[in-house]
Amino acid sequence: MDERIKKQIAFSLELDKEKNVFRQTSLSGHGRKENDAEHAWHMAIMAYLLQEYANAPVDVARVMLMCLIHDVVEIDAGDTYAYDSEGLETQKAREDAAKERIFSLLPDDQKADLISVFDEFEANETAEAKFAHAMDNFQPLLLNHSNGGSDWREHDVHAGHVYGRQQKTREGSEYLYEITDTILKENIQKGSLPDRPARED
Amino acid sequence: MDERIKKQIAFSLELDKEKNVFRQTSLSGHGRKENDAEHAWHMAIMAYLLQEYANAPVDVARVMLMCLIHDVVEIDAGDTYAYDSEGLETQKAREDAAKERIFSLLPDDQKADLISVFDEFEANETAEAKFAHAMDNFQPLLLNHSNGGSDWREHDVHAGHVYGRQQKTREGSEYLYEITDTILKENIQKGSLPDRPARED
Repeated sequence: MDERIKKQIAFSLELDKEKNVFRQTSLSGHGRKENDAEHAWHMAIMAYLLQEYANAPVDVARVMLMCLIHDVVEIDAGDTYAYDSEGLETQKAREDAAKERIFSLLPDDQKADLISVFDEFEANETAEAKFAHAMDNFQPLLLNHSNGGSDWREHDVHAGHVYGRQQKTREGSEYLYEITDTILKENIQKGSLPDRPARED
Repeated sequence: MDERIKKQIAFSLELDKEKNVFRQTSLSGHGRKENDAEHAWHMAIMAYLLQEYANAPVDVARVMLMCLIHDVVEIDAGDTYAYDSEGLETQKAREDAAKERIFSLLPDDQKADLISVFDEFEANETAEAKFAHAMDNFQPLLLNHSNGGSDWREHDVHAGHVYGRQQKTREGSEYLYEITDTILKENIQKGSLPDRPARED
Protein backbone atom coordinates (compact mmCIF):
# COMPACT_ATOMS: atom_id res chain seq x y z
CA MET A 1 0.00 0.00 0.00
CA ASP A 2 1.33 3.43 -0.85
CA GLU A 3 1.63 6.26 1.66
CA ARG A 4 -1.35 8.21 0.34
CA ILE A 5 -3.95 5.50 0.84
CA LYS A 6 -2.38 4.53 4.17
CA LYS A 7 -2.91 8.09 5.40
CA GLN A 8 -6.45 8.20 4.06
CA ILE A 9 -7.24 4.94 5.82
CA ALA A 10 -5.67 6.16 9.08
CA PHE A 11 -7.83 9.30 8.99
CA SER A 12 -10.94 7.28 8.11
CA LEU A 13 -10.38 5.02 11.09
CA GLU A 14 -9.76 8.00 13.35
CA LEU A 15 -13.17 9.39 12.35
CA ASP A 16 -14.75 6.31 13.87
CA LYS A 17 -14.03 7.74 17.33
CA GLU A 18 -16.53 10.52 16.74
CA LYS A 19 -19.26 7.92 17.31
CA ASN A 20 -18.22 7.84 20.96
CA VAL A 21 -18.45 11.59 21.54
CA PHE A 22 -21.83 12.15 23.16
CA ARG A 23 -23.78 15.39 23.12
CA GLN A 24 -26.36 16.79 25.52
CA THR A 25 -29.26 16.24 23.11
CA SER A 26 -31.49 13.21 23.62
CA LEU A 27 -32.80 11.21 20.69
CA SER A 28 -36.53 11.51 20.01
CA GLY A 29 -38.79 9.22 22.03
CA HIS A 30 -36.81 10.19 25.17
CA GLY A 31 -33.90 8.10 23.95
CA ARG A 32 -30.26 8.02 24.92
CA LYS A 33 -27.96 10.96 24.21
CA GLU A 34 -27.00 11.52 20.60
CA ASN A 35 -23.39 11.29 19.43
CA ASP A 36 -21.51 13.64 17.12
CA ALA A 37 -21.54 11.31 14.10
CA GLU A 38 -25.31 10.92 14.27
CA HIS A 39 -25.80 14.65 14.75
CA ALA A 40 -23.59 15.43 11.73
CA TRP A 41 -25.38 12.89 9.53
CA HIS A 42 -28.76 14.29 10.53
CA MET A 43 -27.68 17.89 9.90
CA ALA A 44 -26.27 17.05 6.46
CA ILE A 45 -29.52 15.52 5.22
CA MET A 46 -31.53 18.37 6.72
CA ALA A 47 -29.25 20.86 4.95
CA TYR A 48 -30.10 19.18 1.67
CA LEU A 49 -33.84 19.11 2.40
CA LEU A 50 -34.11 22.65 3.76
CA GLN A 51 -31.70 24.45 1.40
CA GLU A 52 -34.63 26.37 -0.13
CA TYR A 53 -34.84 28.38 3.10
CA ALA A 54 -31.25 29.65 3.14
CA ASN A 55 -31.08 33.46 3.18
CA ALA A 56 -28.69 33.39 0.21
CA PRO A 57 -28.18 30.69 -2.44
CA VAL A 58 -25.77 28.03 -1.13
CA ASP A 59 -23.48 25.40 -2.62
CA VAL A 60 -25.33 22.66 -0.79
CA ALA A 61 -22.57 20.08 -1.32
CA ARG A 62 -20.21 22.32 0.62
CA VAL A 63 -22.81 22.86 3.35
CA MET A 64 -23.25 19.10 3.64
CA LEU A 65 -19.51 18.47 3.85
CA MET A 66 -19.24 21.21 6.46
CA CYS A 67 -22.00 19.58 8.50
CA LEU A 68 -20.33 16.18 8.22
CA ILE A 69 -16.93 17.31 9.51
CA HIS A 70 -17.70 20.30 11.76
CA ASP A 71 -17.36 18.28 14.98
CA VAL A 72 -14.30 16.17 14.09
CA VAL A 73 -12.15 18.10 16.57
CA GLU A 74 -14.36 16.89 19.41
CA ILE A 75 -12.66 13.50 19.14
CA ASP A 76 -9.92 15.12 21.25
CA ALA A 77 -11.63 18.21 22.63
CA GLY A 78 -14.94 16.61 23.66
CA ASP A 79 -18.36 18.14 23.21
CA THR A 80 -18.84 21.54 24.80
CA TYR A 81 -22.48 22.10 25.64
CA ALA A 82 -23.86 25.25 24.03
CA TYR A 83 -24.80 26.68 27.43
CA ASP A 84 -21.64 25.70 29.34
CA SER A 85 -19.95 29.10 29.78
CA GLU A 86 -16.88 27.66 31.56
CA GLY A 87 -16.23 25.06 28.85
CA LEU A 88 -16.72 27.65 26.15
CA GLU A 89 -13.77 29.66 27.47
CA THR A 90 -11.23 26.93 26.78
CA GLN A 91 -13.01 25.44 23.76
CA LYS A 92 -11.03 27.29 21.09
CA ALA A 93 -7.58 26.24 22.34
CA ARG A 94 -8.64 22.61 22.81
CA GLU A 95 -10.19 22.48 19.37
CA ASP A 96 -7.23 24.13 17.61
CA ALA A 97 -4.83 21.49 18.95
CA ALA A 98 -7.25 18.74 17.93
CA LYS A 99 -7.66 20.18 14.45
CA GLU A 100 -3.92 20.11 13.86
CA ARG A 101 -3.47 16.56 15.16
CA ILE A 102 -6.45 14.96 13.45
CA PHE A 103 -6.31 16.54 10.01
CA SER A 104 -2.54 15.93 9.90
CA LEU A 105 -3.32 12.23 9.53
CA LEU A 106 -4.37 13.03 5.94
CA PRO A 107 -2.14 13.67 2.91
CA ASP A 108 -1.16 17.38 2.87
CA ASP A 109 -3.55 18.41 0.09
CA GLN A 110 -6.53 16.84 1.83
CA LYS A 111 -5.46 18.21 5.21
CA ALA A 112 -5.48 21.71 3.70
CA ASP A 113 -8.82 21.09 1.99
CA LEU A 114 -10.66 19.83 5.07
CA ILE A 115 -9.15 22.51 7.30
CA SER A 116 -10.43 25.13 4.86
CA VAL A 117 -13.94 23.64 5.15
CA PHE A 118 -13.66 23.43 8.93
CA ASP A 119 -12.33 26.99 9.27
CA GLU A 120 -15.03 28.32 6.97
CA PHE A 121 -17.65 26.83 9.27
CA GLU A 122 -15.98 28.30 12.33
CA ALA A 123 -15.58 31.77 10.80
CA ASN A 124 -19.31 31.76 9.98
CA GLU A 125 -19.02 34.39 7.26
CA THR A 126 -20.10 32.64 4.04
CA ALA A 127 -23.69 31.75 3.17
CA GLU A 128 -22.70 28.07 3.39
CA ALA A 129 -21.27 28.40 6.90
CA LYS A 130 -24.26 30.40 8.09
CA PHE A 131 -26.70 27.84 6.77
CA ALA A 132 -24.67 24.99 8.30
CA HIS A 133 -24.87 26.81 11.65
CA ALA A 134 -28.63 27.09 11.23
CA MET A 135 -28.70 23.29 10.86
CA ASP A 136 -26.44 22.91 13.91
CA ASN A 137 -29.18 24.68 15.91
CA PHE A 138 -32.31 23.47 14.16
CA GLN A 139 -31.52 19.74 14.30
CA PRO A 140 -31.21 19.47 18.11
CA LEU A 141 -34.13 21.90 18.51
CA LEU A 142 -36.39 19.46 16.67
CA LEU A 143 -35.25 16.56 18.85
CA ASN A 144 -35.60 18.51 22.06
CA HIS A 145 -39.02 19.85 21.04
CA SER A 146 -40.16 16.29 20.25
CA ASN A 147 -39.18 15.37 23.81
CA GLY A 148 -41.14 18.23 25.38
CA GLY A 149 -38.00 20.29 26.05
CA SER A 150 -36.45 17.78 28.46
CA ASP A 151 -32.86 18.74 27.52
CA TRP A 152 -33.47 22.34 28.55
CA ARG A 153 -34.96 21.32 31.87
CA GLU A 154 -32.09 18.92 32.55
CA HIS A 155 -29.61 21.77 32.15
CA ASP A 156 -31.69 24.56 33.64
CA VAL A 157 -31.57 26.49 30.38
CA HIS A 158 -33.86 29.49 30.03
CA ALA A 159 -35.43 31.23 27.07
CA GLY A 160 -32.91 34.09 27.08
CA HIS A 161 -30.08 31.68 26.50
CA VAL A 162 -31.84 29.81 23.72
CA TYR A 163 -32.85 32.98 21.91
CA GLY A 164 -29.26 34.20 22.13
CA ARG A 165 -27.97 31.09 20.45
CA GLN A 166 -30.72 31.07 17.84
CA GLN A 167 -29.50 34.37 16.39
CA LYS A 168 -27.10 32.20 14.37
CA THR A 169 -30.09 30.42 12.86
CA ARG A 170 -31.43 33.82 11.79
CA GLU A 171 -28.18 34.65 9.98
CA GLY A 172 -28.51 31.45 7.96
CA SER A 173 -32.26 31.39 7.46
CA GLU A 174 -34.84 34.00 8.43
CA TYR A 175 -37.56 31.47 7.64
CA LEU A 176 -36.16 28.75 9.90
CA TYR A 177 -35.70 31.37 12.59
CA GLU A 178 -39.43 32.12 12.36
CA ILE A 179 -40.17 28.42 12.71
CA THR A 180 -37.74 28.26 15.65
CA ASP A 181 -39.50 31.21 17.26
CA THR A 182 -42.87 29.47 16.87
CA ILE A 183 -41.46 26.31 18.47
CA LEU A 184 -39.82 28.21 21.34
CA LYS A 185 -42.99 30.19 22.09
CA GLU A 186 -44.95 26.95 22.20
CA ASN A 187 -42.43 25.55 24.71
CA ILE A 188 -42.51 28.70 26.82
CA GLN A 189 -46.29 28.58 26.89
CA LYS A 190 -46.28 24.93 27.94
CA GLY A 191 -43.75 25.66 30.67
CA SER A 192 -41.06 23.51 29.02
CA LEU A 193 -38.73 26.47 28.63
CA PRO A 194 -38.67 29.01 31.51
CA ASP A 195 -39.24 32.51 30.21
CA ARG A 196 -36.27 34.14 31.91
CA PRO A 197 -33.36 35.99 30.30
CA ALA A 198 -30.67 33.38 31.11
CA ARG A 199 -29.62 30.80 33.68
CA GLU A 200 -29.36 32.32 37.10
CA ASP A 201 -26.10 30.62 38.03
CA MET B 1 -46.54 26.67 10.03
CA ASP B 2 -47.36 25.83 6.43
CA GLU B 3 -47.78 22.28 5.17
CA ARG B 4 -44.46 22.13 3.38
CA ILE B 5 -42.27 22.82 6.41
CA LYS B 6 -44.50 20.60 8.56
CA LYS B 7 -43.82 17.71 6.20
CA GLN B 8 -40.11 18.44 6.06
CA ILE B 9 -39.98 18.50 9.86
CA ALA B 10 -41.95 15.24 10.10
CA PHE B 11 -39.50 13.51 7.74
CA SER B 12 -36.51 14.99 9.58
CA LEU B 13 -37.81 13.62 12.87
CA GLU B 14 -38.50 10.24 11.30
CA LEU B 15 -34.85 10.07 10.20
CA ASP B 16 -33.87 10.15 13.86
CA LYS B 17 -35.02 6.53 14.19
CA GLU B 18 -32.18 5.38 11.95
CA LYS B 19 -29.87 5.93 14.93
CA ASN B 20 -31.54 2.94 16.57
CA VAL B 21 -31.04 0.52 13.67
CA PHE B 22 -27.97 -1.48 14.56
CA ARG B 23 -25.70 -3.28 12.10
CA GLN B 24 -23.45 -6.28 12.49
CA THR B 25 -20.25 -4.23 12.31
CA SER B 26 -18.45 -3.36 15.54
CA LEU B 27 -16.86 0.04 16.07
CA SER B 28 -13.08 0.08 16.14
CA GLY B 29 -11.44 -0.73 19.46
CA HIS B 30 -13.82 -3.71 19.80
CA GLY B 31 -16.65 -1.31 20.50
CA ARG B 32 -20.40 -1.75 20.39
CA LYS B 33 -22.25 -2.38 17.14
CA GLU B 34 -22.50 0.52 14.75
CA ASN B 35 -25.87 2.00 13.78
CA ASP B 36 -27.08 2.99 10.31
CA ALA B 37 -26.76 6.74 10.85
CA GLU B 38 -23.13 6.43 11.93
CA HIS B 39 -22.37 4.08 9.04
CA ALA B 40 -23.93 6.49 6.52
CA TRP B 41 -22.05 9.48 7.95
CA HIS B 42 -18.76 7.59 7.83
CA MET B 43 -19.36 6.42 4.24
CA ALA B 44 -20.22 9.93 3.05
CA ILE B 45 -16.99 11.46 4.33
CA MET B 46 -14.99 8.53 2.96
CA ALA B 47 -16.67 9.03 -0.44
CA TYR B 48 -15.43 12.60 -0.43
CA LEU B 49 -11.90 11.63 0.62
CA LEU B 50 -11.51 8.66 -1.70
CA GLN B 51 -13.27 10.02 -4.80
CA GLU B 52 -9.98 10.09 -6.69
CA TYR B 53 -10.11 6.27 -6.81
CA ALA B 54 -13.53 5.96 -8.51
CA ASN B 55 -13.31 4.03 -11.79
CA ALA B 56 -15.13 6.84 -13.57
CA PRO B 57 -15.46 10.53 -12.62
CA VAL B 58 -18.30 10.99 -10.13
CA ASP B 59 -20.54 13.83 -8.97
CA VAL B 60 -19.33 13.45 -5.41
CA ALA B 61 -22.20 15.49 -3.95
CA ARG B 62 -24.63 12.93 -5.34
CA VAL B 63 -22.51 10.04 -4.04
CA MET B 64 -22.50 11.64 -0.59
CA LEU B 65 -26.26 12.15 -0.60
CA MET B 66 -26.71 8.54 -1.74
CA CYS B 67 -24.51 7.35 1.13
CA LEU B 68 -26.45 9.47 3.62
CA ILE B 69 -29.89 8.14 2.70
CA HIS B 70 -29.22 4.63 1.35
CA ASP B 71 -30.31 2.90 4.57
CA VAL B 72 -33.37 5.02 5.43
CA VAL B 73 -35.71 2.13 4.60
CA GLU B 74 -34.14 0.09 7.40
CA ILE B 75 -36.11 2.21 9.89
CA ASP B 76 -38.99 -0.14 9.03
CA ALA B 77 -37.25 -3.06 7.34
CA GLY B 78 -34.35 -3.49 9.76
CA ASP B 79 -30.76 -4.21 8.83
CA THR B 80 -30.23 -7.33 6.76
CA TYR B 81 -26.75 -8.70 7.33
CA ALA B 82 -24.81 -9.04 4.08
CA TYR B 83 -24.34 -12.77 4.66
CA ASP B 84 -27.86 -13.62 5.88
CA SER B 85 -29.28 -15.55 2.89
CA GLU B 86 -32.73 -16.05 4.45
CA GLY B 87 -33.16 -12.36 5.27
CA LEU B 88 -31.94 -11.37 1.83
CA GLU B 89 -34.87 -13.22 0.20
CA THR B 90 -37.51 -10.99 1.80
CA GLN B 91 -35.40 -7.85 1.92
CA LYS B 92 -36.69 -6.27 -1.33
CA ALA B 93 -40.39 -6.48 -0.41
CA ARG B 94 -39.78 -5.15 3.12
CA GLU B 95 -37.67 -2.28 1.84
CA ASP B 96 -40.12 -1.30 -0.93
CA ALA B 97 -42.94 -0.88 1.56
CA ALA B 98 -40.68 1.13 3.85
CA LYS B 99 -39.53 3.35 1.00
CA GLU B 100 -43.10 4.28 0.13
CA ARG B 101 -44.12 5.00 3.72
CA ILE B 102 -41.08 6.97 4.80
CA PHE B 103 -40.46 9.15 1.74
CA SER B 104 -44.20 9.93 1.58
CA LEU B 105 -43.73 12.02 4.71
CA LEU B 106 -42.00 14.59 2.46
CA PRO B 107 -43.60 17.10 0.07
CA ASP B 108 -44.16 15.37 -3.30
CA ASP B 109 -41.24 16.99 -5.13
CA GLN B 110 -38.79 15.99 -2.41
CA LYS B 111 -40.28 12.52 -2.14
CA ALA B 112 -39.64 12.04 -5.88
CA ASP B 113 -36.15 13.48 -5.60
CA LEU B 114 -35.00 11.29 -2.69
CA ILE B 115 -36.60 8.18 -4.18
CA SER B 116 -34.66 8.82 -7.40
CA VAL B 117 -31.43 8.99 -5.38
CA PHE B 118 -32.38 5.88 -3.42
CA ASP B 119 -33.38 3.93 -6.53
CA GLU B 120 -30.21 4.96 -8.33
CA PHE B 121 -28.18 3.48 -5.49
CA GLU B 122 -30.20 0.26 -5.55
CA ALA B 123 -29.96 -0.13 -9.35
CA ASN B 124 -26.18 0.22 -9.09
CA GLU B 125 -25.71 1.26 -12.71
CA THR B 126 -24.29 4.79 -12.57
CA ALA B 127 -20.71 5.63 -11.62
CA GLU B 128 -22.08 7.39 -8.52
CA ALA B 129 -24.06 4.35 -7.36
CA LYS B 130 -21.12 2.02 -7.97
CA PHE B 131 -18.78 4.21 -5.99
CA ALA B 132 -21.32 4.53 -3.16
CA HIS B 133 -21.53 0.72 -3.06
CA ALA B 134 -17.74 0.56 -2.86
CA MET B 135 -17.99 2.78 0.24
CA ASP B 136 -20.76 0.58 1.65
CA ASN B 137 -18.25 -2.29 1.57
CA PHE B 138 -15.00 -0.50 2.30
CA GLN B 139 -16.17 1.34 5.44
CA PRO B 140 -17.15 -1.77 7.46
CA LEU B 141 -14.12 -3.62 6.07
CA LEU B 142 -11.82 -1.04 7.68
CA LEU B 143 -13.61 -1.33 11.02
CA ASN B 144 -13.62 -5.11 10.94
CA HIS B 145 -9.96 -5.23 9.91
CA SER B 146 -9.08 -2.88 12.77
CA ASN B 147 -10.73 -5.39 15.11
CA GLY B 148 -8.80 -8.36 13.76
CA GLY B 149 -11.78 -9.66 11.76
CA SER B 150 -13.96 -10.31 14.81
CA ASP B 151 -17.22 -9.63 12.93
CA TRP B 152 -16.44 -12.41 10.44
CA ARG B 153 -15.67 -14.88 13.19
CA GLU B 154 -18.83 -13.97 15.09
CA HIS B 155 -20.93 -14.81 12.02
CA ASP B 156 -18.84 -17.70 10.70
CA VAL B 157 -18.20 -15.86 7.44
CA HIS B 158 -15.58 -17.32 5.09
CA ALA B 159 -13.36 -15.81 2.42
CA GLY B 160 -15.56 -16.99 -0.45
CA HIS B 161 -18.46 -14.99 0.84
CA VAL B 162 -16.45 -11.86 1.41
CA TYR B 163 -14.83 -12.00 -2.02
CA GLY B 164 -18.27 -12.46 -3.58
CA ARG B 165 -19.56 -9.32 -1.94
CA GLN B 166 -16.42 -7.34 -2.70
CA GLN B 167 -17.04 -7.61 -6.45
CA LYS B 168 -19.26 -4.56 -6.00
CA THR B 169 -16.26 -2.67 -4.68
CA ARG B 170 -14.41 -3.57 -7.87
CA GLU B 171 -17.20 -2.11 -10.03
CA GLY B 172 -16.85 1.18 -8.20
CA SER B 173 -13.09 1.27 -7.75
CA GLU B 174 -10.46 -1.14 -9.06
CA TYR B 175 -7.92 0.53 -6.82
CA LEU B 176 -9.95 0.12 -3.63
CA TYR B 177 -10.60 -3.46 -4.65
CA GLU B 178 -6.84 -4.02 -4.76
CA ILE B 179 -6.54 -2.53 -1.28
CA THR B 180 -9.44 -4.73 -0.15
CA ASP B 181 -7.69 -7.78 -1.60
CA THR B 182 -4.51 -6.89 0.29
CA ILE B 183 -6.48 -6.54 3.54
CA LEU B 184 -8.39 -9.80 2.99
CA LYS B 185 -5.20 -11.74 2.21
CA GLU B 186 -3.64 -10.40 5.40
CA ASN B 187 -6.67 -11.61 7.37
CA ILE B 188 -6.64 -15.01 5.70
CA GLN B 189 -2.94 -15.38 6.48
CA LYS B 190 -3.51 -14.44 10.13
CA GLY B 191 -6.39 -16.91 10.39
CA SER B 192 -8.95 -14.15 10.97
CA LEU B 193 -10.88 -15.07 7.84
CA PRO B 194 -11.18 -18.81 7.04
CA ASP B 195 -10.04 -19.51 3.49
CA ARG B 196 -13.09 -21.49 2.39
CA PRO B 197 -15.47 -20.77 -0.47
CA ALA B 198 -18.50 -19.85 1.69
CA ARG B 199 -20.22 -20.65 4.95
CA GLU B 200 -20.97 -24.33 5.23
CA ASP B 201 -24.49 -23.89 6.58
